[in-house]
Amino acid sequence: MLKLYYAPNTCALAVHIALEEAAAKYDTVRIDFGTAEQRQSGYLAINPKGRVPSLVTDRGILTEVPAILAFVAQSFPGAGLAPIGDPFAFARVQAFNSYLCSTVHVAHAHRVRGSRWVDDAKAIEAMRRKVPQSSGDAFALIENGMLEGPWVMGDSYTICDPYLFTVSQWLEGDGVDVARLPRVLDHRARMAERPAVQRAIAEELARPAA
Amino acid sequence: MLKLYYAPNTCALAVHIALEEAAAKYDTVRIDFGTAEQRQSGYLAINPKGRVPSLVTDRGILTEVPAILAFVAQSFPGAGLAPIGDPFAFARVQAFNSYLCSTVHVAHAHRVRGSRWVDDAKAIEAMRRKVPQSSGDAFALIENGMLEGPWVMGDSYTICDPYLFTVSQWLEGDGVDVARLPRVLDHRARMAERPAVQRAIAEELARPAA
Repeated sequence: MLKLYYAPNTCALAVHIALEEAAAKYDTVRIDFGTAEQRQSGYLAINPKGRVPSLVTDRGILTEVPAILAFVAQSFPGAGLAPIGDPFAFARVQAFNSYLCSTVHVAHAHRVRGSRWVDDAKAIEAMRRKVPQSSGDAFALIENGMLEGPWVMGDSYTICDPYLFTVSQWLEGDGVDVARLPRVLDHRARMAERPAVQRAIAEELARPAA
Repeated sequence: MLKLYYAPNTCALAVHIALEEAAAKYDTVRIDFGTAEQRQSGYLAINPKGRVPSLVTDRGILTEVPAILAFVAQSFPGAGLAPIGDPFAFARVQAFNSYLCSTVHVAHAHRVRGSRWVDDAKAIEAMRRKVPQSSGDAFALIENGMLEGPWVMGDSYTICDPYLFTVSQWLEGDGVDVARLPRVLDHRARMAERPAVQRAIAEELARPAA
């Protein structure tokens, strides 16, 4: 059975939602970022990168959100979570998710994980100051072109949607002026109504760290 | 026909090599970073993100290296550039490429594109000082586990290989102690012997900006 390692309020939520949408059988293990469990030997044996999510499968462990989302879509084709038989349409889905991981998530990380890239406190503060702009600009591209509506890829709900929903949770904390982003907020509200999203969030909030 | 927009010494080289490996018919257009052509209206109409690569197809434009690499592998299945029929094996390929785009490339970008994330000069300098460590640590994970050898995924050459080759071009410039990375260097040397790699590099060096 699949096993998802996650921490609340992280990008792992995107995978959690996708597993719910696919009606997959899976278990979850919560990693406690409060005690830096993700950098302790037990978890590093699962994912040497010390990040979440990790998805344990019967063939081995997978990491990286875009890769896991595509895996879920391909493993549960009946759920219709990606146009897996059409290389161009699938690439558009993947390009959107790649933008979220390499640009949108990275912009956000400069507020909460600045020590990845600088050591001194003043520079970390300088990074934080720019996050409302850098994160806001990244979302502006989504607002003004990438998000087709009602779902990211248009009429079809795909693995882009739980991922956008997940990173859009961070907007207010990142100080982004969300009044610039009515379509993103509309998408977030629409996602929040889905039972799969509600189940994933409820489980993450209810479950204590191991 | 496919058309690749690229700039020399960027991650677009990974796509360029993959197109050569696939024996695809394609044309190339060089974007001049020296005049910031990537942020001018002509190119922004192709890719509003102002980045390279962009791949024009007969159905539309694709961006983001991991997505384009998977597209090439799926569009030219005869080239065997990814285990596209096996969701788990394909996810491992994609996870490697996602790590390159969201962690390895991002670490490097803190030396050359720091203004994405901070405004003041001292903080940009502070970022640059940490790149040898952050980029080196990211490559250490590749060296010590992810790179199976002789190719990234073991015996099979995949779309991971041109991408790793491309980002490993930046090691010395990033001040990484490459003596820590004998397997990465060995991979780089092995890649440099491939005719497809030599053709892609030769074309990028020979071709003037439009």
